[in-house]
Amino acid sequence: MKTGHAHLYIPGPTIIPEEVRRALAVPMQDHRAPEFASLLTPIRYDLRPVFGTTDGTIALFPGSGTGAWEAAIANTLQAGDRVLMARHGMFSTLWVEMAERLGLDVDVVDVPWGAPCPVETFARKLAEDRDGRIRAVFVTHNETATGVASDVEAVRAEMDACGHDALLFVDGVSSIASVPFEMDAWRVDLAIAGSQKGLMCPAGLGVLALSPRALELAEKATMPRGYFHLFDMVNAHAAGSFPYTPPAPLLHGMRAALDRLAAEGLDRVFDRHHRLASGVRAAVAAWGLRTVAESPACASDTVTAIYTPDGVDAREVIAIARDRYNCYLGAGLGPLAGRAFRIGHLGDLNEGMCLSALSIVEMALNAAGARVPYGAGVAAAQETYAAPYTLRVVDGGIAAE
Amino acid sequence: MKTGHAHLYIPGPTIIPEEVRRALAVPMQDHRAPEFASLLTPIRYDLRPVFGTTDGTIALFPGSGTGAWEAAIANTLQAGDRVLMARHGMFSTLWVEMAERLGLDVDVVDVPWGAPCPVETFARKLAEDRDGRIRAVFVTHNETATGVASDVEAVRAEMDACGHDALLFVDGVSSIASVPFEMDAWRVDLAIAGSQKGLMCPAGLGVLALSPRALELAEKATMPRGYFHLFDMVNAHAAGSFPYTPPAPLLHGMRAALDRLAAEGLDRVFDRHHRLASGVRAAVAAWGLRTVAESPACASDTVTAIYTPDGVDAREVIAIARDRYNCYLGAGLGPLAGRAFRIGHLGDLNEGMCLSALSIVEMALNAAGARVPYGAGVAAAQETYAAPYTLRVVDGGIAAE
Amino acid sequence: MKTGHAHLYIPGPTIIPEEVRRALAVPMQDHRAPEFASLLTPIRYDLRPVFGTTDGTIALFPGSGTGAWEAAIANTLQAGDRVLMARHGMFSTLWVEMAERLGLDVDVVDVPWGAPCPVETFARKLAEDRDGRIRAVFVTHNETATGVASDVEAVRAEMDACGHDALLFVDGVSSIASVPFEMDAWRVDLAIAGSQKGLMCPAGLGVLALSPRALELAEKATMPRGYFHLFDMVNAHAAGSFPYTPPAPLLHGMRAALDRLAAEGLDRVFDRHHRLASGVRAAVAAWGLRTVAESPACASDTVTAIYTPDGVDAREVIAIARDRYNCYLGAGLGPLAGRAFRIGHLGDLNEGMCLSALSIVEMALNAAGARVPYGAGVAAAQETYAAPYTLRVVDGGIAAE
Amino acid sequence: MKTGHAHLYIPGPTIIPEEVRRALAVPMQDHRAPEFASLLTPIRYDLRPVFGTTDGTIALFPGSGTGAWEAAIANTLQAGDRVLMARHGMFSTLWVEMAERLGLDVDVVDVPWGAPCPVETFARKLAEDRDGRIRAVFVTHNETATGVASDVEAVRAEMDACGHDALLFVDGVSSIASVPFEMDAWRVDLAIAGSQKGLMCPAGLGVLALSPRALELAEKATMPRGYFHLFDMVNAHAAGSFPYTPPAPLLHGMRAALDRLAAEGLDRVFDRHHRLASGVRAAVAAWGLRTVAESPACASDTVTAIYTPDGVDAREVIAIARDRYNCYLGAGLGPLAGRAFRIGHLGDLNEGMCLSALSIVEMALNAAGARVPYGAGVAAAQETYAAPYTLRVVDGGIAAE
Repeated sequence: MKTGHAHLYIPGPTIIPEEVRRALAVPMQDHRAPEFASLLTPIRYDLRPVFGTTDGTIALFPGSGTGAWEAAIANTLQAGDRVLMARHGMFSTLWVEMAERLGLDVDVVDVPWGAPCPVETFARKLAEDRDGRIRAVFVTHNETATGVASDVEAVRAEMDACGHDALLFVDGVSSIASVPFEMDAWRVDLAIAGSQKGLMCPAGLGVLALSPRALELAEKATMPRGYFHLFDMVNAHAAGSFPYTPPAPLLHGMRAALDRLAAEGLDRVFDRHHRLASGVRAAVAAWGLRTVAESPACASDTVTAIYTPDGVDAREVIAIARDRYNCYLGAGLGPLAGRAFRIGHLGDLNEGMCLSALSIVEMALNAAGARVPYGAGVAAAQETYAAPYTLRVVDGGIAAE
Repeated sequence: MKTGHAHLYIPGPTIIPEEVRRALAVPMQDHRAPEFASLLTPIRYDLRPVFGTTDGTIALFPGSGTGAWEAAIANTLQAGDRVLMARHGMFSTLWVEMAERLGLDVDVVDVPWGAPCPVETFARKLAEDRDGRIRAVFVTHNETATGVASDVEAVRAEMDACGHDALLFVDGVSSIASVPFEMDAWRVDLAIAGSQKGLMCPAGLGVLALSPRALELAEKATMPRGYFHLFDMVNAHAAGSFPYTPPAPLLHGMRAALDRLAAEGLDRVFDRHHRLASGVRAAVAAWGLRTVAESPACASDTVTAIYTPDGVDAREVIAIARDRYNCYLGAGLGPLAGRAFRIGHLGDLNEGMCLSALSIVEMALNAAGARVPYGAGVAAAQETYAAPYTLRVVDGGIAAE
Repeated sequence: MKTGHAHLYIPGPTIIPEEVRRALAVPMQDHRAPEFASLLTPIRYDLRPVFGTTDGTIALFPGSGTGAWEAAIANTLQAGDRVLMARHGMFSTLWVEMAERLGLDVDVVDVPWGAPCPVETFARKLAEDRDGRIRAVFVTHNETATGVASDVEAVRAEMDACGHDALLFVDGVSSIASVPFEMDAWRVDLAIAGSQKGLMCPAGLGVLALSPRALELAEKATMPRGYFHLFDMVNAHAAGSFPYTPPAPLLHGMRAALDRLAAEGLDRVFDRHHRLASGVRAAVAAWGLRTVAESPACASDTVTAIYTPDGVDAREVIAIARDRYNCYLGAGLGPLAGRAFRIGHLGDLNEGMCLSALSIVEMALNAAGARVPYGAGVAAAQETYAAPYTLRVVDGGIAAE
Repeated sequence: MKTGHAHLYIPGPTIIPEEVRRALAVPMQDHRAPEFASLLTPIRYDLRPVFGTTDGTIALFPGSGTGAWEAAIANTLQAGDRVLMARHGMFSTLWVEMAERLGLDVDVVDVPWGAPCPVETFARKLAEDRDGRIRAVFVTHNETATGVASDVEAVRAEMDACGHDALLFVDGVSSIASVPFEMDAWRVDLAIAGSQKGLMCPAGLGVLALSPRALELAEKATMPRGYFHLFDMVNAHAAGSFPYTPPAPLLHGMRAALDRLAAEGLDRVFDRHHRLASGVRAAVAAWGLRTVAESPACASDTVTAIYTPDGVDAREVIAIARDRYNCYLGAGLGPLAGRAFRIGHLGDLNEGMCLSALSIVEMALNAAGARVPYGAGVAAAQETYAAPYTLRVVDGGIAAE
């Protein structure tokens, strides 16, 4: 029998804060009453800074982030539209599949799992696309399967450099609310988040942010849409409601989560994720293991995927952590199955939590046959976490020294 | 400031049982761990008797019942397919709209709001459709907007009578788990329920049950589908999981709700709904008011829509109940706005709860200008609830005497 | 199997507000950490207005109100001290027993159950006590067993009239936070409340308020005390803590309850209790039944005890309400067993809740053999609840018109 | 602002299991209804094996463990009775104080804080007490302030050796339900536990177990008792209730906690505590620090008190852990203030939780000026936790190999 609390270090759903947990425990309510509007409207307003937007439109779709992907595509593109996408992990692969299913003409750039979005290849393809056939560029901001962060700002810079006016879509499901995201500054047209990652709620709400340009395009959309019809949603939202019965408890949870983010301060939230992730990466180095992320420059601050040594099955590491130590790690997905495991380090997290994950991983690695000195990774992370740190003002914001 | 508990008598979300409420309050968990499969698989199994099926396939889509509607259509029909539908309330109207958006060729039969599905018209149209152009017949088992129950069994009988082999789709969102539903006996091909009605959970899961024939058709489906792709879901379900992050707390709630339904016994659940509804209807009669349901024969056992007297604005009745008495009633929708209000009486309900609804309605009606003797409706319902009753065995089941 | 929510109309524990319920659901915490002091100190401060005191000292004893009784006596009186008490219900009887067990010389005035504290007899005895042998006068502000309110202010006036300087002890367990209580104005020396009544929390905290004079006396106390040693508690309280491990979740609940009382406003809380109680009493009159309270002047605003007609066993009424209708009524205690039942109407309550209690009682009374017209009591209460009412300023406060 | 979950490693209240947490979240209920008896009676029954008794009587006093101490003394001893006690930590000191306050003639044996109950001195004093003036021997099974376990069985053996028939009282507040306790085998007459330690509930219930002999003595008790009158409680318990309003949610929590203990198996619970404690002690050794417990033989399996190195203020260690790392450690009490800190390791705990405590302590120690190599203590504990272990059958039970 498992005892003690579960150590949940998958990259979502994340451990939710106590305030969110209590906020979720509301009785059922009338979603057509004025009180509901008073709940929904400020949530949509307060989600804007989390996306880094002041004029974006927020739509909350009951469902998972995958549903928000579909809403994004079906409301702004037409079947046959050409889009530019990279495939470098399980979630970018599924996104390509979704786009193809919905009839888009996807120009897929395959890069190794572990690499970020290939900005240069994108730049070249955009420059070559003189007649503007590419209608949209899709970027996976954080590949949850590989722990790789991509540079959305650089993609935008290349689009600008060649004067390409394609739409810019970003999957921020495992990045938004945990790392800096600048929808307005990067001129992102469609960004997607899910309730169960940095927004520190259970799964059940896909969050879509649309630029004014995307919203305008949606008025001419022709793809068949039912559940994900954008104007059903934004018109209902404007009246403080939903076009169908919403998961109201989740909205109370979202309210509490947004209040926490505001209380901590987004800059401090981002800094904390960076610091905690740095400790995890220091541990990986101390173990003598390799991250799936091909370089520190693209290492994600929300999840770290780690290769096991040759001969050590990552599935066994995961099973030992789970069955002996009540600890849940992310599996290696697709081609990484058995070769890598993942530590999620996002949401409502602190140093002690990361250290418990690392200390359990050390035991599980050894039990699975890897030779990792006990305490070595923990010590490396402790050095990181114990170091005095100051918040540095960067570009009007605050970043870690 | 509102005090005391809210009196929630809308037709969903319904008041949830304490066991469900506590079951929802779980910490987050790994939806890819074996424990999750051990949660999901029995839920799907135990949903079968609720739908009255032994060989149906259950798919749970994160989202609202509307999403399950889309999943039903998109996975079994093609654009251009002719379907036969009735329009006799807001939800059947929205269903027609959904079908048209997805490209179906809808043969709409308009009947007055308050009437049930026009079985004879359907029979005639089916008989006339000698070349079998009608691919599916859609029936709204319980029109939540009007409080009208339709006779699915009769529709099936007419289909059989003329040998029509169209699919039979049933919207059971506000009927399933509250009134008898016999998917197998009525040879329903696709039935839809939502978590927030008779299943006594918060909103957030659309439940789809497919007959073997519907499942087979789904293999040849051509409509573009992403989020609602049936085989993504049923294949993941077969492995004890979901194709994307599910709202896990809801599944714990569903587990508790199914346990309660089983403990009470479905026949007793149905009988209780009938008895409680009978009391509400007795009250309406005692008040001298009319139900929107055109006859007792089609009156719903889960929701009663009631016309206010001439000159009395139903919106005012609702606002008074809400603002003075912390009681939430359903609004008249569409053409019924201002003319009718609704009392939801489904889910985890008992006599005292119905009586509190009726006693508040009496005060709100009077305050809004209707002349309804205090206590008159309550007394009529009390007579009903106080009457000794026995469970009668009918067709191998149990029904109220 | 019981379905729907339980209708809890006992005079405590009362139905707790949702905010309190959520506030209780905290994880465990360190009761010696600074955060705990930040929780406890404002609670003690905010309890003062609830007791009507500005200079009283609040002590919270983990346990029931009975424990606070013991703390009151053991810390201010000596064995052999003469005290004046009335016995007119189960709780005053138990209080007498407690006093005698602790060695006090109790001058008991027995009056009929249903009568209030016999102010005139008290006045006579006090006037006769020329040598001041009576060290304390005990008044049960609200006899929970009979639904009788006593006039503390009148007792104080008589004490003043004859210049008696005995201490004045008041049991306010079922009155404080629900009806006006003026510790300072009435110069009460020791007042007792419990967490589970008007304070709208679960049981588990006895609350004691001491006048400066009582606190001074406590310094010379000689009765053996361990757990209930006052200075262990008030000294620990002064440092923001407890002398032993406190039930911390209850303090979070108390915080939420005090916030609610403040948000509603104490005057409005008192007015609401009066109005709801008036409706219950109107129902009793409409039924042709008698309250245990001998006159309207002493009828309690928090609980009504009602005699059943001859030949109708109150225990049967209670059992029917409980077993058929999931409704919990208070039993007749001691000599009232079988002859009376009680409706608790205090705490987080509204009109619809009282009406559900009354409508169930009507059914239970009839089922137990009483002839009570259905809806009659409900209608009488509805008349009361529907009447327009204004808040009237009385003595600087607000009272019902 | 603190983020992530709090790391609570005080020796009570302990982190409570999720099942307990959910079980606590019940609505209020009628404690005089039959359902309540159905809750209480099996709890009392199932507490027996936790105390190691088959014929002991269980009484649950609303309040803290301190209250159960008072109930134990006041119901079995008289003022002036001589009792034999050791003083070797804060809680044994407070127990002596309680005994003296209640008028007992306490023969106190002072031994150093860090030593266990001085069995030999007790043996000598008992042997010398030829006329049987010593009425009771008090043993603190686990001194929570020093992390020292005492040998109750050895005390019993010495009592038997000299044929002394004094009562044997044991404070098991921080031992019972976490380490083996054999009330019957050791012929303990009165044992005390609290809800907030090994019983994994919030504070609020003191649990008393009485031998038949103690129960018999209680019938002749003469000490004044009100709240803690044993027969009020056991008679009410026999009828399935309490003499005053109980904290009903706690009983639901206790039910869930007992179910967990039974599911894990008491022997495995005890073994787990031993194994987790061994890891903590290995860490202390690896740090080069000293436990307050003077030898491994008396080291507690539920809490470890640790001296900081000279010049390092334990209060600073505690404050750093709390303020930087959201971790709560136990303070050094009384003479240990500033010199020692404590790690509680009891209740619903696992390896990862202990490792997070140890890893935070390492950072806090260093930040406070101690030179402790990062990861050293963690590694020592990991070695312990990773070692394969088997359960060994001992005396018909199971113990760690």
